[in-house]
Amino acid sequence: MSIANTTTTAASMPGVVLPGNSTVEFKEYPIPEPGHGQVLVRMKASSICGSDIRAIYREHLGMGPEGYQGVISGHEPCGQIVKVGPGCKQFRAGDRVVIYHISGCGVCDECHHGYMISCRSGSRAAYGWQRDGGHAPYLLAEENTCIRLPDSLSYIDGAFCACGFGTAYEALRRMQVSGQDRLLITGLGPVGLASAMLGRALGAATIIGTDLSENRLALASDLGLVDLAIKAEGGALDEILQRTGGHGCEASIDCSGAAPARLLALQGTRDWGRCAYVGEGGTVSFEVSKYLIHKQITLFGSWVTSLRHLEELVERLDRWGLHPDRTCTHRLPLSEAGKAYELAAGGQTGKVCIVFED
Amino acid sequence: MSIANTTTTAASMPGVVLPGNSTVEFKEYPIPEPGHGQVLVRMKASSICGSDIRAIYREHLGMGPEGYQGVISGHEPCGQIVKVGPGCKQFRAGDRVVIYHISGCGVCDECHHGYMISCRSGSRAAYGWQRDGGHAPYLLAEENTCIRLPDSLSYIDGAFCACGFGTAYEALRRMQVSGQDRLLITGLGPVGLASAMLGRALGAATIIGTDLSENRLALASDLGLVDLAIKAEGGALDEILQRTGGHGCEASIDCSGAAPARLLALQGTRDWGRCAYVGEGGTVSFEVSKYLIHKQITLFGSWVTSLRHLEELVERLDRWGLHPDRTCTHRLPLSEAGKAYELAAGGQTGKVCIVFED
Amino acid sequence: MSIANTTTTAASMPGVVLPGNSTVEFKEYPIPEPGHGQVLVRMKASSICGSDIRAIYREHLGMGPEGYQGVISGHEPCGQIVKVGPGCKQFRAGDRVVIYHISGCGVCDECHHGYMISCRSGSRAAYGWQRDGGHAPYLLAEENTCIRLPDSLSYIDGAFCACGFGTAYEALRRMQVSGQDRLLITGLGPVGLASAMLGRALGAATIIGTDLSENRLALASDLGLVDLAIKAEGGALDEILQRTGGHGCEASIDCSGAAPARLLALQGTRDWGRCAYVGEGGTVSFEVSKYLIHKQITLFGSWVTSLRHLEELVERLDRWGLHPDRTCTHRLPLSEAGKAYELAAGGQTGKVCIVFED
Amino acid sequence: MSIANTTTTAASMPGVVLPGNSTVEFKEYPIPEPGHGQVLVRMKASSICGSDIRAIYREHLGMGPEGYQGVISGHEPCGQIVKVGPGCKQFRAGDRVVIYHISGCGVCDECHHGYMISCRSGSRAAYGWQRDGGHAPYLLAEENTCIRLPDSLSYIDGAFCACGFGTAYEALRRMQVSGQDRLLITGLGPVGLASAMLGRALGAATIIGTDLSENRLALASDLGLVDLAIKAEGGALDEILQRTGGHGCEASIDCSGAAPARLLALQGTRDWGRCAYVGEGGTVSFEVSKYLIHKQITLFGSWVTSLRHLEELVERLDRWGLHPDRTCTHRLPLSEAGKAYELAAGGQTGKVCIVFED
Repeated sequence: MSIANTTTTAASMPGVVLPGNSTVEFKEYPIPEPGHGQVLVRMKASSICGSDIRAIYREHLGMGPEGYQGVISGHEPCGQIVKVGPGCKQFRAGDRVVIYHISGCGVCDECHHGYMISCRSGSRAAYGWQRDGGHAPYLLAEENTCIRLPDSLSYIDGAFCACGFGTAYEALRRMQVSGQDRLLITGLGPVGLASAMLGRALGAATIIGTDLSENRLALASDLGLVDLAIKAEGGALDEILQRTGGHGCEASIDCSGAAPARLLALQGTRDWGRCAYVGEGGTVSFEVSKYLIHKQITLFGSWVTSLRHLEELVERLDRWGLHPDRTCTHRLPLSEAGKAYELAAGGQTGKVCIVFED
Repeated sequence: MSIANTTTTAASMPGVVLPGNSTVEFKEYPIPEPGHGQVLVRMKASSICGSDIRAIYREHLGMGPEGYQGVISGHEPCGQIVKVGPGCKQFRAGDRVVIYHISGCGVCDECHHGYMISCRSGSRAAYGWQRDGGHAPYLLAEENTCIRLPDSLSYIDGAFCACGFGTAYEALRRMQVSGQDRLLITGLGPVGLASAMLGRALGAATIIGTDLSENRLALASDLGLVDLAIKAEGGALDEILQRTGGHGCEASIDCSGAAPARLLALQGTRDWGRCAYVGEGGTVSFEVSKYLIHKQITLFGSWVTSLRHLEELVERLDRWGLHPDRTCTHRLPLSEAGKAYELAAGGQTGKVCIVFED
Repeated sequence: MSIANTTTTAASMPGVVLPGNSTVEFKEYPIPEPGHGQVLVRMKASSICGSDIRAIYREHLGMGPEGYQGVISGHEPCGQIVKVGPGCKQFRAGDRVVIYHISGCGVCDECHHGYMISCRSGSRAAYGWQRDGGHAPYLLAEENTCIRLPDSLSYIDGAFCACGFGTAYEALRRMQVSGQDRLLITGLGPVGLASAMLGRALGAATIIGTDLSENRLALASDLGLVDLAIKAEGGALDEILQRTGGHGCEASIDCSGAAPARLLALQGTRDWGRCAYVGEGGTVSFEVSKYLIHKQITLFGSWVTSLRHLEELVERLDRWGLHPDRTCTHRLPLSEAGKAYELAAGGQTGKVCIVFED
Repeated sequence: MSIANTTTTAASMPGVVLPGNSTVEFKEYPIPEPGHGQVLVRMKASSICGSDIRAIYREHLGMGPEGYQGVISGHEPCGQIVKVGPGCKQFRAGDRVVIYHISGCGVCDECHHGYMISCRSGSRAAYGWQRDGGHAPYLLAEENTCIRLPDSLSYIDGAFCACGFGTAYEALRRMQVSGQDRLLITGLGPVGLASAMLGRALGAATIIGTDLSENRLALASDLGLVDLAIKAEGGALDEILQRTGGHGCEASIDCSGAAPARLLALQGTRDWGRCAYVGEGGTVSFEVSKYLIHKQITLFGSWVTSLRHLEELVERLDRWGLHPDRTCTHRLPLSEAGKAYELAAGGQTGKVCIVFED
């Protein structure tokens, strides 16, 4: 890490690559030079997301343009700009930035409203998947994927917003969660914790979380993020109904990706309520009249977030005085990336983050 | 039927009851007297709904307060008021009325916004299920379930609105279908045909329908209600995509209640699109990331309609010059109710309606 | 008031009438008997609304069916049912109820979704305006205007919901106020205070209030309902912008009915924000490009609330543990109704409420 | 114009500048070379907008970064790409494109969802105002302001979308106009005509237009764009109400910018309806209780459109088979730009467009 204190000369730097067999490798890379419209960002915090574990670390899922392409890993990067390429319009060296986790063409219909996640161009590239990501001391980023980090937020706060908190925020926003709502969260992994923290800030006075893991239930309770933590087993629905006057919650969100939890989210939603699915993978199966039609439910599929909403999120966090880094249980230096991935893969921790010394 | 031409003396009248073994019985009833807040309606048209067939005619499904209780059948009634009880505030003898198919308490939270379908009171009673319905020359109705029928609409138009067209309208309204949308309809039974007719009036320029039945595909096409009628088999999705530039439809609605059709409705919905399920019964199962999350879909469960929206619907039909009775393929007198139910149960017809001579 | 402890015999009771010259008169009335669908409510709390002062107490504004018709005054009644007429479906003697302030026909399109305020029938009658209201020991109410009062709420809480808090709730609900929003309130009379209390419960983290009256600014601050109380004079807009990073508030509501305050509400709204007007009377004038178009503002006119939303409001108050009676500065017995109206007309108090001994 | 047939050598070209005294000047310019992320577009159609007349041609309104800066005029450009700079991601020589009328930084919160009109950066520049526009044979454009023109649309169609039709579309979209609605349009200039054409495509079955000019009323009627054209004088409101069963229109839009027309738009809106203001300049004044609150109106300020919605608009026009060029009454070559501006300033024509020979 000695490099971390040098200026950006033509030196090299270590970067993490993931062979796909639950190990971590370091390779040496030249420190990149920003081209037109690009900035060089000195990494300060770079967290690990569930999809890094599921689809890259353990094995390489996804083929072709969607698959991992052997680049430096890490798609939740946050740091400080140290060099600015020609044609940049807003940012300068010294600016603290969160980086939206995908770089799109900027010209298609999805990029035109900020959903680079759904960019229709061949030039679409996710940091840490198809272009070098944040698990290295420096990251080459497109200026138009950078969001200014408010002074009140830490770099870890920012990293957590780049994907996980952004995903939670987008879904809660689409459901228009407010003080009107009790909020049910199925799955208390990092995105579930994010949903709880943000749901509270949006006004939800009662937040109920469910999970299979005792550790995660305990963590959510200990952090004060949920009012009721329920083991996701037989009696869970009864407990939810009991706590909500027999009605269920006005809004619910599944962050687990598991079919039974998705069903529970629907079952635990009140008549006329809204339910969002953000947990990835797998299927869902349910009785349609009973759980959707007769309850007049609106069910949203919601995929990560947009540049605009990421920006809005960090503005709101600043205003609310909220710190996503509270959900971080492990901070390790880049040199211990192997241990970081191992911890994250264990499924017993809160969020795991690689941090960089100044 | 001779009684149909008499005035409302203390005479008797025949009424249809359904024993639940695919037969129809006639019983004799006194012509009722309207009590406080009630009106006596001379039936003019009284149609048969899919749920009459599925849950009463073939066998009595549903138990207790939700089940059929041996009353006069028919929950899509339309006619003319002949007598008004004390305390009525808006209607008089001579008024032509559609009758919302369920009578609620009028005082609970669901009745308070017109969704008597979801009335939480023990006094909730559906016409033709828990209180006498429209398959008799006279119907005793609560004034607050009556909607004035515009002059331009026929009694059959009105009957079809009471449940079927109301159900279609509610879902299309919730999806806010407009000229922005191409509309996919899975299931071309009466509610599917209603969705097509109303979807066009709301502005949908392209309407695609699917069904398993060649007869129903042909009927929908012959009536000019769909632009493309597709057999619901292997290649259906490809045809839908091909017709929509590879995108799918901006809005879709399942009127079949069948799991494969529900999946097809989701698959055939464009990114950021809306899908509604109104067909009753059964289940659905789908890959959540692929069909809901990554497509950013909003999926609505929608159950019949409200008094307010039923009233809005008949106003709009009047304005649009539309006639739901175009979807009627068979009109029979009350004396042939047995044949009417048999036809409806055959599943090869359009809408079947009992009509009454003047 | 001796009568207040008797049971409902054919006795008489005093009732307040308002001659329209800033005085109060008492007349003697027979205690009414509930007819079909009616209940007799023993009053417990009956508050005074700004419109009582403006349009009845000082002078009789409004003509014909909209005008005051010499009845017992008071349109914010709350009490306990003591007798139930025939045909009632939900309520019994002993039930504690809030009474929606207007009785509609129950059959028109507006009544059909609970907006009896906009009932199109000649039978529309507001309590305290066209039919006897709550400033008497007993009130004859239609069952379908009664909302069950949760145990946790006091009768004064209930009275305040019947009109004032309902009006605030409806507008905030239409704007979908949540933790996303900073809320600007122009006019800190009773409806302004209600907006502040409810806005906070919906999630608004920053609430800014403006008024001309130092007393009202002080009251709002002392109750902790606003974070910033600003005198509505020259520099108010600057203060609002300063407190909101130069942006203005995401949501704003005018509760004053004054033209300059309405303009200030628009000016203080952030780009893409929402503004609601609920304060009655007068006009507004503004530069359209500068304050509406270029800011992409949505401006709502919002009129009182509906039965459904009133019911939702009392459910939410119960859940939130909120008590509207905190905004009550003066509680007087019916015998001191003259003083109560005088206080309310003075414009220097919080809410004034007539209360009844048990 | 001889240059129009040459290829892009280092030749020069004429361009229109507007001194601000109701005259037009031609100056000679080098044909520009596209830089990074830029394209050179050969103009095919370049129309004149009302704001060109009001704020540039007659006199230079607006100061500083918002004002006209002596550049080549024309902010509704459409043409064919002839040269592509480095770093372009989607477009190539030969592509037919509409150009969104403002170039933003691409990095601020407004640009992040495509509203470059509200770009917060100093680099914001409107074509024809702060950077060279379309009244010259070639235009240097940012790739990220280009929208692909579907084959079915003419270049004039495209030009009209760049600002005018985009403005109408945005407002109708925000109001969610559909077949549910009758649409009232106050002001039948180009944006009013666009609203009529698009409102019809969105489903509006009845369209009522008002204007002071007999010519414009006749044009709207002759083009079949409105069902009823009403002179904007005393009896206009009565005529609107008469045509709509006494209710007014469910949706209305003011395209005039005139205070009386804005009031008329509000007055002619039905209870619970929506009204949008898009016409620029001036003020509005109205009685708030009568026209906004008691009618439960939602009033939108809507400013031009976004990149995303412009793209959606051209897709929809292609699908609908609609041609904005139907509203074009005068097509002139660049050499007659003086006459073109004079005609547009006369206020008696439909849309005026500069067209370029192939």
